[in-house]
Formats: sequence, C-alpha cells, structure tokens
Amino acid sequence: MTTSQATFESLVKDMGEIYALAEIGSVLHWDQETMMPERGVSTRAAQLAELAGVLHAKRTSPELVDKVKSVDSAELDPTQKAAMREICRDVDKAQKVPASLLKEIAKEASLGHQTWAKARKEQNFSLFHPVLERMIGLKKEYAKCLGYKNSPYEALLDEFEPGSELNDVASLLGDLEAPLRDLAERIKSKNQPKVSLQGDYAADAQLKLAKVVSEQLGYAFTAGRLDLAVHPFTSGGTPGDVRITTRVNPQDFQDCLYSTIHEVGHALYEQGIDQSLTFSPLGYAVSLGVHESQSRLWENQVARGPFFSQWIYSRCNEVLGLGEMAYDAFYQAINEVGGSFIRTESDEVTYNLHILLRFELERAIFEEKLDPADLETAWNDRSEELLGFRPPSVDVGVLQDVHWSGGHFGYFPTYTLGNVFAAELYQCAEKDVDDLSAKLVNGDVCELLGWLRENVHQHGRLYRAPELLQRICGHKPSAEPLLDYLEDKFSKIYGL
Amino acid sequence: MTTSQATFESLVKDMGEIYALAEIGSVLHWDQETMMPERGVSTRAAQLAELAGVLHAKRTSPELVDKVKSVDSAELDPTQKAAMREICRDVDKAQKVPASLLKEIAKEASLGHQTWAKARKEQNFSLFHPVLERMIGLKKEYAKCLGYKNSPYEALLDEFEPGSELNDVASLLGDLEAPLRDLAERIKSKNQPKVSLQGDYAADAQLKLAKVVSEQLGYAFTAGRLDLAVHPFTSGGTPGDVRITTRVNPQDFQDCLYSTIHEVGHALYEQGIDQSLTFSPLGYAVSLGVHESQSRLWENQVARGPFFSQWIYSRCNEVLGLGEMAYDAFYQAINEVGGSFIRTESDEVTYNLHILLRFELERAIFEEKLDPADLETAWNDRSEELLGFRPPSVDVGVLQDVHWSGGHFGYFPTYTLGNVFAAELYQCAEKDVDDLSAKLVNGDVCELLGWLRENVHQHGRLYRAPELLQRICGHKPSAEPLLDYLEDKFSKIYGL
Repeated sequence: MTTSQATFESLVKDMGEIYALAEIGSVLHWDQETMMPERGVSTRAAQLAELAGVLHAKRTSPELVDKVKSVDSAELDPTQKAAMREICRDVDKAQKVPASLLKEIAKEASLGHQTWAKARKEQNFSLFHPVLERMIGLKKEYAKCLGYKNSPYEALLDEFEPGSELNDVASLLGDLEAPLRDLAERIKSKNQPKVSLQGDYAADAQLKLAKVVSEQLGYAFTAGRLDLAVHPFTSGGTPGDVRITTRVNPQDFQDCLYSTIHEVGHALYEQGIDQSLTFSPLGYAVSLGVHESQSRLWENQVARGPFFSQWIYSRCNEVLGLGEMAYDAFYQAINEVGGSFIRTESDEVTYNLHILLRFELERAIFEEKLDPADLETAWNDRSEELLGFRPPSVDVGVLQDVHWSGGHFGYFPTYTLGNVFAAELYQCAEKDVDDLSAKLVNGDVCELLGWLRENVHQHGRLYRAPELLQRICGHKPSAEPLLDYLEDKFSKIYGL
Repeated sequence: MTTSQATFESLVKDMGEIYALAEIGSVLHWDQETMMPERGVSTRAAQLAELAGVLHAKRTSPELVDKVKSVDSAELDPTQKAAMREICRDVDKAQKVPASLLKEIAKEASLGHQTWAKARKEQNFSLFHPVLERMIGLKKEYAKCLGYKNSPYEALLDEFEPGSELNDVASLLGDLEAPLRDLAERIKSKNQPKVSLQGDYAADAQLKLAKVVSEQLGYAFTAGRLDLAVHPFTSGGTPGDVRITTRVNPQDFQDCLYSTIHEVGHALYEQGIDQSLTFSPLGYAVSLGVHESQSRLWENQVARGPFFSQWIYSRCNEVLGLGEMAYDAFYQAINEVGGSFIRTESDEVTYNLHILLRFELERAIFEEKLDPADLETAWNDRSEELLGFRPPSVDVGVLQDVHWSGGHFGYFPTYTLGNVFAAELYQCAEKDVDDLSAKLVNGDVCELLGWLRENVHQHGRLYRAPELLQRICGHKPSAEPLLDYLEDKFSKIYGL
C-alpha cells in the first residue's frame, strides 16, 4: 500500500464519521415534518444548528484538510479515485464557503420563506422582491466562493447536478421547447372532454392502496415506512432506513397514489445502493437529476404507462371502488394534458416547459441579463410564449414555487434532467428486459427493478450523471427518447 | 461582573451546545423504539456511537476543562452555584471515566442483554453468571473512577440519585420492610376473591381512552405525542417536545390505561420545567427518584385513588364499556394486592419489597458480601422472607429484570424512592389544595398539577432531591407518609 492509499483509507474512515453524523440530520428533518409536536420547533432548530456546527468543524479541521492535500490521486485505483473526488468536493466546499455566509443564507432563507408566503397570499410580487434581491446577492457571493468558469449559475447548478456542464443542460432543455410546444398545441386543438376521478375516498383506503402499490413496486417496508406529510418527500441516506411520505386528498385519490409512487421511485434508488457503501464516499445518489429519473420512471413510464396502469386500475377498483369507470377512461384521466398554471399540477407534456421557463429566468438573473425587479413581467411574457397563457395572478405565476425563497437556484433544471434520464433509461430497459410490457400488465416489475438496481442503484455515486448515462445507453443523454416517448404515448391517447 | 461570573456565562453557553447535541440522542432513541424500520438498526448504532464520540470530545476538551477549573464558585449567586454544580458533575464524569471503559461497558451490555435473554428463556442462571461477573467487574472499575467514600455502590447510586446518601436510602428502604410485610400478610389472610377486568377491548378504543385521560391530566399534545412501544417510556429533555409511549393488551385495558398514566406523570414533569432553562445546566429533572415520584403520584395516589378513579371509571364505561361491573368492583380490581412473582406486575404494597430484595442483593455484591455465583440462591431465600414465596423458576425470579444485564446497578432503589417521595408530596398537596378529593372526583386535577408545577417541576434541578423534599415538606424524606397512605388505603379496601 502506498502512502497515498494509506492516507486515503484513513480519510475514508474520517469521512465515515462525518457521513454518519450528517445522516442524523435526515432523521431530525424527517421527524420534524412527520412526527414532531408543534412546540418542538425552536429546540429542534437549535439541535440542527449545533449539528451543522459540528459537521462544519469536522469538515474544515486542519488534520482532515492536510490528509486531503497529501493524497496523490494518481496512486489510487478508479473506484478510489471516484471516492476521492467526492471527498474533495465535500471538504473543498466546506473550506471555500465561510460559515458566516452559510449562516446568513440560512437566516435569509427563513425570512425569505415567510415573506414569500405573505407575498403569495397577498398576491404582491413587490413584497417579495427585496428579499429575493438579497438572496440573489448572497448566492452570487456563494457561487464566487465555489468558483466557476463563465457563469455563476454554473456553480449553483453543480451543487445539485455535479459533473453536468451548463451548456449541455441548456441544450437539452432547449431541444425540448419546439417539439413540446407543438405537441401541447396539437393536443389542445383536439378539445377532448375531461374525465374526472373526483369522488369521495376514505383516507384509510387511500393509504392501504398506497401501501399495496409500494410493496408491489419492490419498496421494502423492513427498510422504510410510509407516513403523512404536507409536502411528500423521501428521507434516506442508508439503504436500511429509507422513509417515504405521502398526502391524502379525500376528493382525489390520484394525489396520494401518484405522490406515493413518485416517492417510492426515489426510495427504491436509496434502498438499492450497495449496502457495503453505507457511510462511505460513494454510498450516495449521483445527482438530483438521476434521483428524479428514478421517481419519474416509476411514476410516469411505469405507473402512468399503458401496461402497469392496468394492474393499478384493478387495485384501485378492489381497494377504493371505481364505480362505473372503465379502464380506458381511467387511463385517460391519469394522463390528461391540462395546461395548468401550476407546475406541480401539470402533465408530462407541459411540465418541462414550466421548467424551461424557470431555468431561463434564473440563469438570466445570475448572468445579469434580467433585473429581478422585472421578473414578474418576464415570467408572464415567457409563460405566454411557452405555455400559451399569462398567469391571472402571481400566486399561480411567479410566486407559485417555494424554491427561490430558500435560495435554491439551479435546482429546477434537475427536474427536467430527471425526465430526460428516465426516458433514456426506460428505452434501454425495454430493450434488455424480455416482454416488459406483458410483465407490467400483470404487475410484475421485478426484472425492471433488477435492471435499475444493476445499472443505476448499486453503484451509488461511482459515476457522475453524464458518464452513468453514457455507460448504460451508449451515448450522451439527449432529448430524443423523451420526445419520442411523449409523442408516441400522447398521440395514442389523443388520437393525433 | 467578576471574572468567575464571566467564565461561568461562557461555560453555560458551551454546555448549552452540549445539551442540545445530547438531546438529539433522545430523539434518535425514541425513533428507534417507535418508528425505525428493523433494517435501520446497524446504521442507527453507528450514528449513536458517533454522537457519543462528539459529546465525549466536547465534554473533555481542554478549553472547557480549563474554564471549569477557573470558576470560583464563591463568586456566584445560589442559582449560578447550583448550575455550576451540575456543570462540574457532567464535565468531571467525562474526565474521570476513560472512553475505553465506557466502550467496554457498552459492548458488555449489548452482549449481556443477549445472554440474559437466552438464559431467561432457557431458565438457566449459570448461563448468565459469567457475563454478570464481568459486568460487575467493569462497574467496580467505573465506581473507582468516579470515586466514593465507603462503598462502590455509593458511586453507582449517585449516578441516578445525585445528592442522596447511601445510608439514608438504606434506612428509608429498611423502614418499609416490617410494616409492608405485615400489611401484605394481613391482606393475604383475608382471602378476598379476585375481581377480573379481563375482556376483549379494541386497540383503537384503548388508545382513545389513553388520549382522553392524558389530556385530562394536563399532558399537552402540542408539546408531545402518544405512540406504541414494547416497553412504554417517556422521551423528553425539552419542555416543548416530551413524547410518551404505551402498549395495548387486548385482553386487559388496565395495562394501556395505567402505563399511559404513569408515563404522563413523567411527561408532566418534563413539560413543566421552566422553558427558560431549556439547554441550560438546571433545565433537567432532579433525579430518577423525583422523576418516579411524579409518575407514581399520578398513577397511584391519583388514578388508583378513591376519587379520581371515579372519573376514570366513567370514561372507561363511555369509551370501552364495562358491562355490568359496578364502580366498587372496578376500584377493587385496579387495587388488587396479588403477591406476584414479577416486580412489574406487583401491587403498591408488595412492590417496594421487590425493590428491597434487589437493593440488598446488588449492594451486597458491590460490597463483596455476596458472591455473584450465589445470587440465585440468595434471591430465592430472601424472596421467601420478604414476599412469602420462592420463585418457581429464574425467569420469574433472579432473571426477571433487564437492568443488571445492562450494568444498571443502583437504579432499582430509585423506584422506591419515587414511591416514598410521591407519598410525601401528595400528603403536602392535600394540605395545600382545598377540597382536593372533591375536585378529583370530578376529574379536576388543575390545582394539583399547578401545585406540582410550582413546587417541583419548574425548578428543574435547582435543588437536589433531599433538599427539594425538605423545602416542600419541612422535613427529611421519611417512610412514614408512604406507610400511612398504604395502611389507610388498603385497610379500607380489604376491611382490615
């Protein structure tokens, strides 16, 4: 063993302690969103702040930084190199960004969230504008600390999508615009009447259905649990304990059902990471885009697809009772292209146009091509071009999303990357898994899950997103599979 | 402000960080016992170990120890002195006990628990004996590190009951023996037929009852929650987040009902500590004995007493339905003196004899008056004297309790101290609260809770147990109030 290798081993051990402590934060966050009594808020905030302090101190300790510097990556094997890349990323970031700036961002985010909620309620963008300006200023400083080549937005995107080039992401998203606008337009012109799934569905029955479907998809309840949360999320980080949450709308079971499936997609990824990687540098998801590809693949390609939805329809009928609704109507209802003002309520076709809107605007802000004071108008103008409507008010327009209030610039494009990657992966899986459609009709997802486990999940973050996709699909991720998939699926549904 | 005062303030801040981090451990433990999926065990253990490591490093950091040394307590006011006493206790202990010994004890405890469970199942004390010997050896070393005057058992007792003298505790417990044996004997000779509460009670209804009763007792669900656990416990440490657990036996609702009330007693204490003391040296319970006095007072003096039990009876009837059972039979059933082999299933009269047995034996072991090899025989012999029977097997005899397998010597006497303190406190409260009995008949506990809040809860650990009791009752805690209470109550029930 060379000196570099020995130091590397010792670093992995040090980092293991940091990862184990960091994961405590996940448990505390999950608890806060699902279990914590309301009066626990202030002490929980103090606990999280102390934990963050401990982690920052550990990540910036001179001994650790010295070890990182003294490893010569050339002496490591490819897997060790990948691990070292992740260690450096983690330690570098802690070194480069001063704790005082992080605190300021956290403080502004907390204020930002309150102000955003108020401005949204009062439908007044100008209330939010000054807080947004300050947050943008702080995040510019943050980007500067991290460093970038041409645009501060590169540094922000890299936080969520490490290893992806801004220009590549911009091309991918840009390639979607014209075909998706065209597809949405053609669907709209068909004027097809809506099918409603509205009804009266007991919460117990909806949760039972959610559980049945989760288990069928391969989610292991021995390594997780399902609870209620206002905004569904997945809490994970170790394959033995990955918890999902959902919500129940008594009038619309689709919300609980598809929120659950989405989170199950995330959870299957976390549960599928090789357990020997737990608390090691590679034992985590690649990126938000790859994470989202897993949730989207299960939610859309599988559970809103023409095959597995037949199995779901039967379960809905058994558990909830669908009355006179035939499968065809059910299938149309779960795939309705509606042209919603709201991103989170939009369909597979227009969703990515919502994302393109946000991506363009936030990038323009950080590249100083758009003054945040003009954001509302810019939003409305571009909304009209991309989606065909001006939002009637800011609560369903520029103030609809929470992200910017918390300083999460660079996050939005990962949603569309998720859709792009999901289409790429599903196209490959269809080639590799024999009779996938027939299996899905019968609710059998074992081989598909096995394929994802083998190709994506188990590796943790050994490969970065572009490399992972290249290895699996044999080419650089492109918009084509997503466009083909959407064109094919919705042509059939809408008889285009 | 003097230098000592300034250093003291800075110490309080440092310790606040430690307390906030330490409380994260409570959340993780609660989660483990109530929510965590089974496959989360190993990563949770790693998280707890890392957290323990961080806490140990913080408590033994040279800067902190220097600060502690440089404070001259003479310059502090009485409240600051009390806080300084707790800081010293915490920091001293971390200094005195080597981390390696703590690790060895934790390892032996884990093995001990497994071996105890096996030995208990196979009804074979000799299987457990070697592990017990090793644990006793480790705990002797531990006691040596902490220091003591005459007996290593002093140091072990002091962990759970700081400020109480071993001789005082021994006298208190000793004073109970003859009168309780006599009372139990007289009850037994009455040969009163048993009243059964056995039936078939839905879990939902039992939990609803538990919730109704908890709320009536003043437990704030805005600062807590009620969940299921195999062994009910209370998780707290900050008044805004104190969680209780209970269990359900479908055949016997008494288990859920009185377990819940017991835990509510603990929780009311934690919820009642002055919130301004949170994460400060005084913001904690005084001792296990005082903690137990709160659970026992609500469970026994109040909820098994002749007044509040009338209110409980009505609620049981409403929520569960008690069929033909009249109140008198219900009251007798919840106060049956049965002479159980099992401590946790025993009644108010014989419970303390069970404790005396354990206290005498563990003290004798640490004072080398009893060879652990002879523990089974010693247990059986003394059991016969104190309780009137030899256990038919070790699972209901010397191996019935989990405590020794984990090295928790010195813990048992705090249960009886709890009963002694509860009787002392209730006697005082009866004098101070007008018409307490009449209020309890109507389910009105507000004034009693207010009295406990004012006299006990709010102070946190400003006073140690003997001083706290002295201040409230005007005398050193004695066995008399408990004996008077039991004699009076059970004379009436059994017509002695």
